[in-house]
Amino acid sequence: MGPRPTVDRERLLHTIAEYASIGATANGGVTRLALSQEDRAARDRFADDVAAAGMVLRVDDIGNMVARRAGAEDLPSIQIGSHLDSVRRGGRLDGSLGVIGGLEVVRALQEAGRTTRHPVELINWTNEEGVRFEPAMLGSGVACGVFDRSWAIDRIDRDGVRLGDALDGIGYRGEEANRPAPGTAYLELHIEQGPVLDDAGIAVGVVEGILGITWMNLVIEGQADHAGPSPMTLRRDALAAAAEIIGMVEALAIESGPPVVGTVGRLAPDPGMVNVVPGRVEMSVDLRHRTHDGLETLVSEFASRAHAIADRRRVGLTIDRFWTSEPTPFDDRVVTTVARVAKGICPDAMHLWSGAGHDAKYAADAGPAGMIFVRSRGGLSHCEAEHSDDGDIVAGVATLLETVLELDAS
Amino acid sequence: MGPRPTVDRERLLHTIAEYASIGATANGGVTRLALSQEDRAARDRFADDVAAAGMVLRVDDIGNMVARRAGAEDLPSIQIGSHLDSVRRGGRLDGSLGVIGGLEVVRALQEAGRTTRHPVELINWTNEEGVRFEPAMLGSGVACGVFDRSWAIDRIDRDGVRLGDALDGIGYRGEEANRPAPGTAYLELHIEQGPVLDDAGIAVGVVEGILGITWMNLVIEGQADHAGPSPMTLRRDALAAAAEIIGMVEALAIESGPPVVGTVGRLAPDPGMVNVVPGRVEMSVDLRHRTHDGLETLVSEFASRAHAIADRRRVGLTIDRFWTSEPTPFDDRVVTTVARVAKGICPDAMHLWSGAGHDAKYAADAGPAGMIFVRSRGGLSHCEAEHSDDGDIVAGVATLLETVLELDAS
Repeated sequence: MGPRPTVDRERLLHTIAEYASIGATANGGVTRLALSQEDRAARDRFADDVAAAGMVLRVDDIGNMVARRAGAEDLPSIQIGSHLDSVRRGGRLDGSLGVIGGLEVVRALQEAGRTTRHPVELINWTNEEGVRFEPAMLGSGVACGVFDRSWAIDRIDRDGVRLGDALDGIGYRGEEANRPAPGTAYLELHIEQGPVLDDAGIAVGVVEGILGITWMNLVIEGQADHAGPSPMTLRRDALAAAAEIIGMVEALAIESGPPVVGTVGRLAPDPGMVNVVPGRVEMSVDLRHRTHDGLETLVSEFASRAHAIADRRRVGLTIDRFWTSEPTPFDDRVVTTVARVAKGICPDAMHLWSGAGHDAKYAADAGPAGMIFVRSRGGLSHCEAEHSDDGDIVAGVATLLETVLELDAS
Repeated sequence: MGPRPTVDRERLLHTIAEYASIGATANGGVTRLALSQEDRAARDRFADDVAAAGMVLRVDDIGNMVARRAGAEDLPSIQIGSHLDSVRRGGRLDGSLGVIGGLEVVRALQEAGRTTRHPVELINWTNEEGVRFEPAMLGSGVACGVFDRSWAIDRIDRDGVRLGDALDGIGYRGEEANRPAPGTAYLELHIEQGPVLDDAGIAVGVVEGILGITWMNLVIEGQADHAGPSPMTLRRDALAAAAEIIGMVEALAIESGPPVVGTVGRLAPDPGMVNVVPGRVEMSVDLRHRTHDGLETLVSEFASRAHAIADRRRVGLTIDRFWTSEPTPFDDRVVTTVARVAKGICPDAMHLWSGAGHDAKYAADAGPAGMIFVRSRGGLSHCEAEHSDDGDIVAGVATLLETVLELDAS
């Protein structure tokens, strides 16, 4: 089989720096909105790099770029995917790390003269961030059958530009036949975008899946009163009820244990004056859980406790559960393989769940998938201060490479 | 001394109905903004009524109307005051009850042929509500030396009209020499504007004073995070901290006992998105207490508990105490007299504190003062649904009349 393929640290870090120069911001981040001239430049660079690495590139009808390295046997591909688009003034690693890490895997295979049994496909998904065109994960969603192509093509940015026209404008509209088909496994390497690994002092995380999410809007109806002449015990204070519900959401999530999270992010009291007891509050609740049944139980328990608070405080409460994204557990075989490999490279590698969405969610709807997380300093992302240490980056890419080799061998 | 003066129920209720027709709204309320044409019509009516009741009217330099009925001896006056201006779509009794009740007292004295030892002065204060010209209680504030006259005269309404020009426009700018001087006692009859009497099922309240008020603005600085990837225990959630502070304000006020109240009326989380842990919250806190020392202790205890919450949650907290109105306890002799009289008319008459401001606050700064409250249905005020039962109104005015007689006799 020749020499064992290995990550070339200098080549990897140099390539990351070069991609980071495309759309670079003053403070060390990048702005590379989907299908912008900066995205085009990054795509062109990616096309050159995969060609130089001996891969054959195809582009599908939503602009996803799929570079393929042939395998020795007639088997489904092992896929590595992520995205080169960014948010405004985002970090240099969010998305790019997964694409460049995949490129380094292929370069390492090439350098070692290794032909894998399975073909290896490296995918750059279109419009993952959802900043220029909503919603997020549009390219993977179309390729995996979640979104209708014509609906996606008609998405409009804030300047009125259609996604389809933006694709044509940068020369990256291809053919439906070029979409990536589900393979043996889909792997995505990404910075954590959260503080769990950093807090634990661990470089690499084995992602077990993507949490399910439910969003609710609550309306609390109490009684607006003058703050002075209204004794505490006679009030029906909508904001005091909201405050108790906020505390309850926090307690419920904590007692449910990680990775469950619960968040109240939006809240508005009415009339919102210093000397008026609020008569009405609208607020959001975001609950996340790793299983369908767990999420449903969490929502029921939340609603039951919220209504108990409202009844005790003699305020009205309506709960509108307006959006749910089902939990996505990753494939057992892929997770087990990632875990075994990761512990060889980073003995304390920990298992965790992704609270945020990734292209791997839609890939997992279509076939076996898994993810590898790299520690983010302070959990910061979507900002120029996003940072991962070089050693962590190398450990993450090495985990990706070894996982490809393990999956290929089995 | 002739027959005992008594309240004429029909005359009183008829007069209330007639004043309520000036600026009447479709739903049974009134809109009679200070110094408007409706206010002028009510003032003109008041001038006619006091003249018919044998009183001499004077108008001071801020438009306060002072009608005087001579007494038998050379003594300071007994004063009855309130206001004929209203909020937009306010109730028919807020303010008017005190002026019309005072008119009924004088009519009852006149009808009985009673000459009191003290002169009786009936005052209609200018711009009590503060809706057209800010701040509230401007007329009593100028007369009692709290506000500078030229500053008050230059107050501007939302249409750019100066208060002084509005006074001239309706013909009610008088002389500084006509200001009411502090008398033997100042009495004000007013609807409660709160639910205490209604909840207790009692018609008349003896007001012990007006609560002191402090307003604070709080800024809580936490860390904005994605709602998904941020474990509960690693968050620095500014809104969760705010919620705990809201609960603490409520608990602190309840444990302090009536009449202490604490209110969070205004609150805004930033960035205020469903899937982002709020990094910053601005909120108001309104605390009220009946004594200076009590208010200061309450504020200190609040600040101490709020900082403990912030420290435990690792969020920053700044407290800006931007406004304080000192407590105003009423005169012992006046309160005692009101209480003795009230219990004769309404045996379960209860003592309470006013959480809202009234002209009596500034009158009390200048001389002995007291107030009588009449039950408000549901505690509603500043709305067309404001209501007090006829029997309660008569009981309140009878209490006012008997208090005048008692104070005059002693």
